[in-house]
Amino acid sequence: MRIDIITVLPQLLDSPFAHSILLRAQKKGLAEIVVHNLRDYSTHKHKSVDDYPYGGGSGMVMMIEPFVNCIEKLKTERDYDEVIFMTPDGAVFNQQIANQLSNQQNLIILCGHYKGIDQRIRDNYVTREISIGDYVLSGGELPAAVLVDAIVRLLPGVLSDETSALSDSFQGDLLDAPVYTRPAEFQGMKVPDILLSGNTPEIEKWRYEQSLERTRTRRPDLLE
Amino acid sequence: MRIDIITVLPQLLDSPFAHSILLRAQKKGLAEIVVHNLRDYSTHKHKSVDDYPYGGGSGMVMMIEPFVNCIEKLKTERDYDEVIFMTPDGAVFNQQIANQLSNQQNLIILCGHYKGIDQRIRDNYVTREISIGDYVLSGGELPAAVLVDAIVRLLPGVLSDETSALSDSFQGDLLDAPVYTRPAEFQGMKVPDILLSGNTPEIEKWRYEQSLERTRTRRPDLLE
Repeated sequence: MRIDIITVLPQLLDSPFAHSILLRAQKKGLAEIVVHNLRDYSTHKHKSVDDYPYGGGSGMVMMIEPFVNCIEKLKTERDYDEVIFMTPDGAVFNQQIANQLSNQQNLIILCGHYKGIDQRIRDNYVTREISIGDYVLSGGELPAAVLVDAIVRLLPGVLSDETSALSDSFQGDLLDAPVYTRPAEFQGMKVPDILLSGNTPEIEKWRYEQSLERTRTRRPDLLE
Repeated sequence: MRIDIITVLPQLLDSPFAHSILLRAQKKGLAEIVVHNLRDYSTHKHKSVDDYPYGGGSGMVMMIEPFVNCIEKLKTERDYDEVIFMTPDGAVFNQQIANQLSNQQNLIILCGHYKGIDQRIRDNYVTREISIGDYVLSGGELPAAVLVDAIVRLLPGVLSDETSALSDSFQGDLLDAPVYTRPAEFQGMKVPDILLSGNTPEIEKWRYEQSLERTRTRRPDLLE
């Protein structure tokens, strides 16, 4: 899978893609993540990428031309399945969308900033608008990193233990049961006896009940 | 405001906190963000911070001791308003929680990894569990960065234009109206005439209608 990210702040994405699972996925050749500096596609003398909004108002708006220049160049190199714009008014991201996108070959992700991007980009180039949640962030870079992380870890071969991704929260519509590790007692706080019993069927039963109870208490909406 | 983040991958957070608004907030002394390496608080010989789960199963569990050592040390230095654990089964983060947290003085954020953290940490030290959305990520680092970004940008003096945060999506329960900037025409794609009219009251009316329409179409749940 190849993912191209277009941003005015490419350096902000340096470290998230250089560690842990995203690094491993790239080293194994399972994911190619390329970050493009939007300013490189500006034809303005000062490499500006934003301008005042038509009709007045506070904040700056990102211009159509640099985005289009970058998108058009990428499209001459390969076919893209989706051009995704990260925006708080997009469809709210969830595990189902992550699963869908992990089956694609080539994705472009646009990161907005300031007051937003020129609507003509959204109307004419963007195929999918995604929000990572109902909150406002400084730009689309962290949302893009979140999206990439959620997608790439689903690619076959990325996680060392294939069962890990499948048993994660949300893949089975139930939240995970509580987990514990050594020591069995720490400053008076003990691990539940059942987990030390060695009785696997009873442990599985306990875990299922805990999952169900946690989901009922915390996220009843997931059971509906 | 001071935010302490405890993580096994401190380097992953290098670049998100070193640019843009988060950099500016720190330079202005409005936010102090300190990232702690969990391994520094391990008393094990190989600085390990995880171990196999009691009761069997795939994945590793983060041990209680290193987290407690770090939390206890920080608590001797200052009082904390919240110890937040980023987890997909926490309360779903939204702008209201961001507003609340931006009024606090000192926060600790714990980043989980692998199969999760020992439940005793959650039961005895964590005061608040937050999820940034219904999807699974490789760890709590990106969610922590998202949380910090959403909170810090609300601190008075952080955004250059104070009206910007207030007019963002979600602060007023309506999505933003479309925005446009120069050029007025690009490859045949035009800016709506109304925005070029100079008629401010009509423009404001158009924007309100667009906001309402966009919210109705995309996120009717916000209007309920």
